[in-house]
Amino acid sequence: MYYLDTLPDPQRTIGRIPQQPAIWVLNQKELPHRIVVEVLENVAEVVDAIKTMTVRGAPLIAAAGSYGVWLAAIEAADYSKPAEWFEMQLQQIYASRPTAVNLANALKRFEVLKDEKDPQQRIERSLALAEEIIAADITICEQIGVYGLELLKTIFQSAPHKPVQILTHCNAGRLGCVAWGTITAPIYKAAAINLPVHVWVSETRPRNQGASLTVWELKQAQIPHTLIVDNAAGYLMQLQKVDICIVGADRVMRNGDTINKIGTYLKALACKALGIPFYVALPSTTLDTSFHSVYDIEIELRSNTEVLYMNGKDPQGNLQQISITDPETPVFNPGFDITPAELITGFITEKGICKPDSLVSLLLS
Amino acid sequence: MYYLDTLPDPQRTIGRIPQQPAIWVLNQKELPHRIVVEVLENVAEVVDAIKTMTVRGAPLIAAAGSYGVWLAAIEAADYSKPAEWFEMQLQQIYASRPTAVNLANALKRFEVLKDEKDPQQRIERSLALAEEIIAADITICEQIGVYGLELLKTIFQSAPHKPVQILTHCNAGRLGCVAWGTITAPIYKAAAINLPVHVWVSETRPRNQGASLTVWELKQAQIPHTLIVDNAAGYLMQLQKVDICIVGADRVMRNGDTINKIGTYLKALACKALGIPFYVALPSTTLDTSFHSVYDIEIELRSNTEVLYMNGKDPQGNLQQISITDPETPVFNPGFDITPAELITGFITEKGICKPDSLVSLLLS
Repeated sequence: MYYLDTLPDPQRTIGRIPQQPAIWVLNQKELPHRIVVEVLENVAEVVDAIKTMTVRGAPLIAAAGSYGVWLAAIEAADYSKPAEWFEMQLQQIYASRPTAVNLANALKRFEVLKDEKDPQQRIERSLALAEEIIAADITICEQIGVYGLELLKTIFQSAPHKPVQILTHCNAGRLGCVAWGTITAPIYKAAAINLPVHVWVSETRPRNQGASLTVWELKQAQIPHTLIVDNAAGYLMQLQKVDICIVGADRVMRNGDTINKIGTYLKALACKALGIPFYVALPSTTLDTSFHSVYDIEIELRSNTEVLYMNGKDPQGNLQQISITDPETPVFNPGFDITPAELITGFITEKGICKPDSLVSLLLS
Repeated sequence: MYYLDTLPDPQRTIGRIPQQPAIWVLNQKELPHRIVVEVLENVAEVVDAIKTMTVRGAPLIAAAGSYGVWLAAIEAADYSKPAEWFEMQLQQIYASRPTAVNLANALKRFEVLKDEKDPQQRIERSLALAEEIIAADITICEQIGVYGLELLKTIFQSAPHKPVQILTHCNAGRLGCVAWGTITAPIYKAAAINLPVHVWVSETRPRNQGASLTVWELKQAQIPHTLIVDNAAGYLMQLQKVDICIVGADRVMRNGDTINKIGTYLKALACKALGIPFYVALPSTTLDTSFHSVYDIEIELRSNTEVLYMNGKDPQGNLQQISITDPETPVFNPGFDITPAELITGFITEKGICKPDSLVSLLLS
C-alpha cells in the first residue's frame, strides 16, 4: 500500500492505477479532516480496506470487491500460489462485510471465472467484468438521479416559495458509490437545474458518516445543508421542517423490507407517524434476489471502540482519538437495522419509482 | 467559586456548606472523567452552573435554583444593592433554562417572599423553603421508586428466568435529582431486593448524558448496564431485548404530552410500533399546571458547539475537546422534543401509576 498526493479524479471514489495491478481509493476514515488517497496492491489490502471502512457504502464495497477479484486473478497466476488461491480470495472478499448485499451480488457474477483455466484469460475477463460493474454503478446512480429529480420537482411545485427540505441519514452519497451517489444523485440533478434544495444531515452515530462524509460531500458540491444529531430527527419532523426523507440501503428484500444503517428505522417510524414521505434510493444491485426473510440476514455487530471513542481534530490541528466515557463500559453496537416495507413510501430505482409491492416486477422483469 | 476535595455526601448531588452562604454541587460536565465538586457563593454562579449544565436534570435545576433564591435573599440584604435586587435575581434564575418546568414551579413558591420587608426574615424564610423543596424532591423520588418497583416486579414475574430489561434515555437518575433519581429509583429499589434488572443506556447525543452520567451512576451502584448509540434503540427493540422503556421528563402538560430530552419521541414511537410499554417517571413538580398546549412551550435551542465538538480523555489521560467535523458546518440543535400522550403507556408518580388521562386527577386532586 502506498499513497498518492492528489485524488486522480475528484468526481470518483475509486479507480485503477494505469499500467499497474493496483487501485486507488479515497480513505473515508480520514474525512473531513484530511484527504488521503491510498493505493491498494493486493487482495489482502482490499479486504482490509473494506473491513476497516476505509471504503464503505454498499455500492462502493461492491466496486472495491470487484477490483479485488481482478487482483485475486493476478495473484492466482503466480505458480507459487496454491491452486485454490482464486476461490479462497473470493471467499475472503465475500466475508469482508456480511450485511450489504451489493458485494455478494457482484461476486456472484465472477463465479463463472472459477472454471477459467487460463490464468491470463482469467485476469482479462475479471478486469473486464469489474470495469463493467463499476461503469454500471455510475449509470445506475445517474438514472436514480433522473427519477428522483422528478419527485423533488413535484414537491417543489406544491410549495414553490421555499427549498425542498430533504432529510437523509448516513452517507448514501457519491462517497458511498463510484460517482453520483444514490440519494445524492437527485440532489445533484436538482442543483444543476437550480431547483432549490436544502439537506438535513443526521450525524449517524457511532461512525458519524453523516457529519463527516455527507456534510463534506455536500459542502464540496455547494448544496445547502444543516447537521443534526440523530436524536433530533423526530423533532425536526414535528416542526414540519422535512418534506421528504431519502435514505440508502445495504440490502432490500423482495417484499421491500430494507436493511440500512442503524437508526434508519427510527426515522421511518417518525415519517409514518407524521405523514412525511419516506423513500429508499435503491440501485437494483442492492436487491436481495433470494426468498429469505429479512430476519434471516446477519446484522453485523461492530466493535465497542466505535461507541466508546471518538476521532477528531484537537485545538492544535492534530487528529486525536478520545474516550468519551469509561472505556470498560459494556456496549452493544449493531451496524444496521430493519425498516419494514410498510413504513416505506417508495423506492427510487434506476428503472423508475415504485411502491414496495411492485419492486420485483420493476427490477427483475 | 471554589472547589472541595471530596464529595460531602456521596448519595447526594447538592447541599449547603455549613455556616456559609454557599452551596456545593457535583460538576456534571466533568463526569465520568473527574469528580469535581464546586462551591457556588452567589446567584450569578448558580445561574451560570444551570446555564452551562454543571448542574442539569429538571429536579436538580429546581433544587439549585431554590438555593439560588436563598443566596439572592442574602445578597438583597446588602444595602448597597438596589431595592429590586431580590426580584431581579429571581428573574435571572427563572431565565437560566427555559424548558424544564420544575424550576418555574419551585420559583412560584418563593414569590410570596417578594413582599417580605425584613431582609433577615426573607433570608430565613427562603432557606426554609429551599430546604423544604429539596427534602420533598428526595421523598418524591423515593416514592416513585416504590411504585415503579411494583411495575418491575410484575414484568419479572411474567418471565422470571431473566433480568428485567429496561431502556432509558439521557440521565433522569440520581445525578439529575437531589438523590435517588426518578427513573433510577425503581431500579435501585429492585437491586435492594435482588430483583434482577439490566439497563440499556442510550448515549443521548449531543451531550452524552447517558454515556457519561447514567453509565457512571449505574456502575457506582453496581447495576448491570449496556451502552448503545441512540440510533440503536429501535433495532434493540426489534430484537425483543427491551421489556420496558422508562424516561424522565422536563415538562408534562395536563393532557400527558411530555417534553423530554431530544430523542425521547423516537424511542416512544418504536415502543408503540413494537408493543413495548413506555413509561415516564414523573414527580408532580414536573407537571405544568397551566392549560397551555405543549406546542406553546419554548423548546430550547442550544449551541452548535455541542454537536460539532466532543469532550473526552486523550491517550495521555488529559481532557480534550476535539472537532468531529468541519467547525463551520451549519447546525440545528434543539434540546428537547415532544412525546404526545398517546404514545405513553403510563406515568410513574409519587402518588401512584396512572395513564395520561388520569394525570390531573391523581396529581392535582
